[in-house]
Amino acid sequence: MTALAELREAPGLEAYLAELEDRLEAAVGRYNGVVAEVGGEALAAGGKRLRPLLVYLSTPRAAEPPVVAGVAVELVHLATLMHDDLIDGAKLRRGRASAWSAHGSGAARAAGDYLFARAFAELSTTRDAASVAVLANATLCLARGEAMQRRQRFDPGTSIDAYLERCTLKTGKLFEAACRLAGGPGAFGLALGVAFQITDDILDCSGVTIETGKIAGTDLREGTPTLPLLLAAQRDEAIREALAGGVQVEGALLRVASTGALEESREVALAYARSARACLNGEPHREELESLTYAVVDRER
Amino acid sequence: MTALAELREAPGLEAYLAELEDRLEAAVGRYNGVVAEVGGEALAAGGKRLRPLLVYLSTPRAAEPPVVAGVAVELVHLATLMHDDLIDGAKLRRGRASAWSAHGSGAARAAGDYLFARAFAELSTTRDAASVAVLANATLCLARGEAMQRRQRFDPGTSIDAYLERCTLKTGKLFEAACRLAGGPGAFGLALGVAFQITDDILDCSGVTIETGKIAGTDLREGTPTLPLLLAAQRDEAIREALAGGVQVEGALLRVASTGALEESREVALAYARSARACLNGEPHREELESLTYAVVDRER
Repeated sequence: MTALAELREAPGLEAYLAELEDRLEAAVGRYNGVVAEVGGEALAAGGKRLRPLLVYLSTPRAAEPPVVAGVAVELVHLATLMHDDLIDGAKLRRGRASAWSAHGSGAARAAGDYLFARAFAELSTTRDAASVAVLANATLCLARGEAMQRRQRFDPGTSIDAYLERCTLKTGKLFEAACRLAGGPGAFGLALGVAFQITDDILDCSGVTIETGKIAGTDLREGTPTLPLLLAAQRDEAIREALAGGVQVEGALLRVASTGALEESREVALAYARSARACLNGEPHREELESLTYAVVDRER
Repeated sequence: MTALAELREAPGLEAYLAELEDRLEAAVGRYNGVVAEVGGEALAAGGKRLRPLLVYLSTPRAAEPPVVAGVAVELVHLATLMHDDLIDGAKLRRGRASAWSAHGSGAARAAGDYLFARAFAELSTTRDAASVAVLANATLCLARGEAMQRRQRFDPGTSIDAYLERCTLKTGKLFEAACRLAGGPGAFGLALGVAFQITDDILDCSGVTIETGKIAGTDLREGTPTLPLLLAAQRDEAIREALAGGVQVEGALLRVASTGALEESREVALAYARSARACLNGEPHREELESLTYAVVDRER
């Protein structure tokens, strides 16, 4: 994500992200023990810090970008990753052993719960209950999105609308919360998040293991009906069967690609990115926010 | 818990608990799907609603007992139970199949996360950030207590102090939060919670399966060093080995009882109950709060 790397070099943003890292470390490392250890490793593994970036860029003119909001959304995101890996049985996260596979499921659960609670504890230091309500609602949506994903599993008849609703709940709402916590345009974040998630789902069909630290094809193996897989299943009965939990298909990802499902999915992601741009209206960081809408769909990891 | 049953019949309390059940049901059932289903079952399974009761009884004179605080603490408690069963692999909860064993671990995880987030969403409707901070800190302590329990597992050398700290984090802090959210005496709740937890741990060594819906001896089988087990391990090498994860011991719970560890543990629970009473000072429900300190240590389930 070269465009993103350039963005990050803006002087104000650099200082913001540096303070963010310090505060994240302090929040996670506050108590000795397994939660600090597991949480610290999750932090050190890095990540794009996309949601805090969104907080920064969404802040209205003359306002100070709220570091605490960046900390809170990133902590919720980290907690979600930890719980997702735990339940999915994913052994790798960003190319390293995931928390549960390194430390056991109990440690990952406790660390995930700790990170969730820490997010609310951090945000409530602002004494701003409206912000807490925004974060609580986004977190609720994450849990609903997770439940929806479970329900849709192995169902190649999942509608595109139902898939998009899942993306909204799982990814869009926390992006929206990042913008709203900064006092910025929530609708922009929501659309950006959906564009981001669709792109993630395309990368799972086309990505390279070494670069992403993930194993491509996870969604198909796990029966998670993503946009490219749903479109491919409409056109290739073998993919439909594989998605329904049937037999493994030789060269499945090549077959998905040959249906044209990846290009078509990319069109949908681009449409969401456009609709995100259409939400902008003279924001102080409008240019960077626009760059972001291109960056989230044009990435290789 | 006959004393508790009598307490509950007080007219104001009855109305409070009825409204609480309605609000809990509405909060859990707000969205269709697996989280509502799993959460609804957890609610329907009942439970003592001890934390909301504490909210009610802690409310200062002339103040309205805050139903939303009762809802929030009970939701956090339910979420914790769900996650605990998931990680412990406990198949039963209150005599019924636990959420994960009935619905799978993904559903239990999503439902638990949903209940956590719903607690914060409910409480943040009050626009009172101080309350949210109290709940967030209690939730943090729950996660720390969970992590501590993991660390202490299979360690018969766990100190009594470390055990008591774990009880404070795992149980005391949410009882304390219930009192504080009502504007009442937090220190009372903290001591009461520890007394409650010690009693729970004694019941695990002496309780009857059918009545409690739990299988007695779980702590010993899982290597969780509770007060009665730690005291028994000091006096019986076989118990010490069993607690360390060694071989199963024939008639282990009878051996624990024969060391006198149960009576001694009960003395500690009674001391915490006394210290809870010592925190009271002319509260409007002082008499009921005192009854509660007797009820939590004199129960069979």
